[in-house]
Amino acid sequence: MLRVIVVEPEGDYNLGFIARLCKNFKVDELVIVNPIASIENAKPFAAKGIDFLENKTRVVFSYNEALKDLDLTIATSSIADIEKDMLRRSIKPWEIHDFILNVKNAGIIFGRESVGLTREEIMKADLLLHIPANPEYPVLNLSHAIGIVLYEIYNHGKRGTSGPPINGKYVKLIDRYVRTIYELVKPSDESIEMYVAMRRTLVGGIRDNEQARAVVHFLRKLYVTLVYSGEDK
Amino acid sequence: MLRVIVVEPEGDYNLGFIARLCKNFKVDELVIVNPIASIENAKPFAAKGIDFLENKTRVVFSYNEALKDLDLTIATSSIADIEKDMLRRSIKPWEIHDFILNVKNAGIIFGRESVGLTREEIMKADLLLHIPANPEYPVLNLSHAIGIVLYEIYNHGKRGTSGPPINGKYVKLIDRYVRTIYELVKPSDESIEMYVAMRRTLVGGIRDNEQARAVVHFLRKLYVTLVYSGEDK
Repeated sequence: MLRVIVVEPEGDYNLGFIARLCKNFKVDELVIVNPIASIENAKPFAAKGIDFLENKTRVVFSYNEALKDLDLTIATSSIADIEKDMLRRSIKPWEIHDFILNVKNAGIIFGRESVGLTREEIMKADLLLHIPANPEYPVLNLSHAIGIVLYEIYNHGKRGTSGPPINGKYVKLIDRYVRTIYELVKPSDESIEMYVAMRRTLVGGIRDNEQARAVVHFLRKLYVTLVYSGEDK
Repeated sequence: MLRVIVVEPEGDYNLGFIARLCKNFKVDELVIVNPIASIENAKPFAAKGIDFLENKTRVVFSYNEALKDLDLTIATSSIADIEKDMLRRSIKPWEIHDFILNVKNAGIIFGRESVGLTREEIMKADLLLHIPANPEYPVLNLSHAIGIVLYEIYNHGKRGTSGPPINGKYVKLIDRYVRTIYELVKPSDESIEMYVAMRRTLVGGIRDNEQARAVVHFLRKLYVTLVYSGEDK
């Protein structure tokens, strides 16, 4: 299941275009967090995607609620790959398909037209996605960014370069272990970057389930050792 | 040089979005044929692409003028690959880059929001491009289609699947020979499909310049033989 999540969209036309794109590229559901745009005014822009707006779109009033029941969450940003900012390490649109292939419920999260997603919102997602564009002006309009991402997911297989999958349960396990281990080892509350970097590296670097199993196994061993050595002292 | 050509665009917002996308993905120029939309009203939608609209955009009043000085022209349509319609045989967005790589001046042509390009307009282009989407509703909004195509061209190399190039002069030569040969052999004026099919097959099937040279050589031989056998009779 593929869910598109849009946080506080501002433009009626964008909301309509997004619903149309969801239908064009067979998305399963659209979840809108605190819309500023009007769904009613968006309808003309949805064209024949109007039924998607009426039947497959939900409005929710919290970010966490929008992410509920998802095994893998991918935030998006036009700001990415900044030196020393682990939160901004990104995957590219042509890599998404590999990450969501064996995931039961995947969600891709898009931010506000004006300011995108907050760091806190990006932090809650498993991965960050960035669309490479002109360094002088890489900021795409919201619905155009969504169009590119959905096009990539819909057409990926046809390119004949489908990569190996990673199961959603491993993504969850890796996050849980990394977070727990981080809490056990963190030098201070200011060192959250350590956790973010490790999570990004692991979820982004694994190419198949066998590799994922091995990583989880290692993390579990690490965790058990840490907890027991703590008890011994 | 990459030129985007938009024929009779109707929506101000689309025109603005298109200029923004041209800047996002480093297009060289935008040529608008007989705009119905207002460039002035489009400006707010161009955001920081407004300078592209002001400095790198031209309005022309004929389709042929928009295609002037181009070595390779690619028309676009949401209607493609219909049985027995050679004009509708299409290439996909991820294949464009290979076709334009060694072409000096390439143009990609997009039609009206309401009815797209006419058959006559498609006929004048070397290739037809189609974005695969949901068969139940494959019709993308104009500016979103442009966004996907420009994204593909801009990012193609990064995927690491760059294919072999074909030089623009061969594209022109192939068209000239095929057209001339067609004129020499056509059974009737109703058989134009023959020419279209041959042109599409040759321009679309060639993968490198060596192959192109061989095809042109064959066509030239064919032409000379046809002309001389006509004189002998």
